[in-house]
Amino acid sequence: MSVEMEIVCVGNELLIGKVLNTNASWMAKRATSLGVMVKRITVVGDYVEEIAIATVEGLQRKPRFIITTGGLGPTFDDKTLEGIAKALNRKLEVNKDALRMVREKYEAFAKEGRTEKVELTPPRVKMAKLPEKAKPLHNPVGTAPGVMIVVKGKVLVALPGVPSEMEAIFEDSVVPLLRKAAGGTAFFETSIFADDIMESSLAPLIDQTMHDNSFVYIKSHPKGRENTPHIELHFSTTAKGSETAKNRLGKAISQLSELIEKNHGRVAMQSNKPALH
Amino acid sequence: MSVEMEIVCVGNELLIGKVLNTNASWMAKRATSLGVMVKRITVVGDYVEEIAIATVEGLQRKPRFIITTGGLGPTFDDKTLEGIAKALNRKLEVNKDALRMVREKYEAFAKEGRTEKVELTPPRVKMAKLPEKAKPLHNPVGTAPGVMIVVKGKVLVALPGVPSEMEAIFEDSVVPLLRKAAGGTAFFETSIFADDIMESSLAPLIDQTMHDNSFVYIKSHPKGRENTPHIELHFSTTAKGSETAKNRLGKAISQLSELIEKNHGRVAMQSNKPALH
Repeated sequence: MSVEMEIVCVGNELLIGKVLNTNASWMAKRATSLGVMVKRITVVGDYVEEIAIATVEGLQRKPRFIITTGGLGPTFDDKTLEGIAKALNRKLEVNKDALRMVREKYEAFAKEGRTEKVELTPPRVKMAKLPEKAKPLHNPVGTAPGVMIVVKGKVLVALPGVPSEMEAIFEDSVVPLLRKAAGGTAFFETSIFADDIMESSLAPLIDQTMHDNSFVYIKSHPKGRENTPHIELHFSTTAKGSETAKNRLGKAISQLSELIEKNHGRVAMQSNKPALH
Repeated sequence: MSVEMEIVCVGNELLIGKVLNTNASWMAKRATSLGVMVKRITVVGDYVEEIAIATVEGLQRKPRFIITTGGLGPTFDDKTLEGIAKALNRKLEVNKDALRMVREKYEAFAKEGRTEKVELTPPRVKMAKLPEKAKPLHNPVGTAPGVMIVVKGKVLVALPGVPSEMEAIFEDSVVPLLRKAAGGTAFFETSIFADDIMESSLAPLIDQTMHDNSFVYIKSHPKGRENTPHIELHFSTTAKGSETAKNRLGKAISQLSELIEKNHGRVAMQSNKPALH
């Protein structure tokens, strides 16, 4: 039974195409590497209602983890915690531990010689207003703490949208939870490249190889055009140990390579072309 | 009343973090530039059930447009049309126009000197199996046609996942629909950069400026750290003409710049630092 996770990204900048969603991709890759299965990524704007709906929908699908990024900062449009509070029907309240974390940050900034006063203005206190029964997570890089809430045995974590802050809190506070939940499984992957065979001709060969190698997933990614085909074949498996994974992937790669060569295609272990995308 | 759109991206490669979701970002930017409001981006894996659920949920929120990318090709894991058919409770059937499009592609490949026979194998016919009452959209770059289905006055469009194919069909077949729906409105944006003022101190200044400029949206994007602040301030508005937009944005920029300088911050029209992310 795989451990499932959903990612919810909050930010108008993602919905207007101003910013590439590198946060979702980074988290998906990191969680996958630990053997966790990311089932869905949802992007919504900076609106309490939208965030609340996405959270409620996510919880209804019962993944073990829901991780949000974005919307934890001091400005008016940082609305993630308000949205989560609404979804859970909990109040937002100043969390003592979070307030201490925020105060310590501004005290440290003052020591570093910043001229601004260490004053807990409303925008600064805002970063310490968490839903009831939430746990703040130390932010080693920035000011706004991350937030963890356990809801009926599922773990909801809210992280900042600044990549360096998101990544730091994810590594410190989320990775240990994922690792424990995945119980020692991990994700293994590798690619080969096929030339001189169209994707439509590869399709039945992939079908057969997957049928004969039940724990291996193979996906074709066309890198050229259908008429000048250069196709990446991505093999992956989730396993408890790297030996098992290597054996599985090796067997599938041998079989598919043979089939491709029988069908007059060529197989290479590395791409011979620069990536088109 | 803004014209709303949702994007649904299909592909396990996005959920394992193998590929950055440049398709979502490209479409979001293009639609936004035409005055359309992207409300949500959803990423699901190559599973009929997941695609069907995401489609049903999208339709229930009643955006004018839902655009999917990915999963239209010839391989077993290209399941988008099966998922959409399930969502709409329609059968998949070979569409005559789509089959002609696919056949013409392979005939053209043969003329170009490809040695493979022009044979409509099951994986090739698969690309012409559309939900009932769907309209195929010409793919000027690749093989699989795009697909358009009108559902209760809302437009559902399925595009391939290969970026060059998605972009070409989007430009040819989707942009005219978006432009017409948006009725001449367009999206305008510009950024200024603030230094020597923390985001938490900027927050009330942004609030005041947005309050006084009701059609302008301002979002702060920290590019440095809270203690060495370098903050992008992104101003945007949707308007019928560029004069109106320029006046609105100009007025808001003047006001916020003055407020920042009164609070001992500095304002620049261009970033003085390489982007951190």
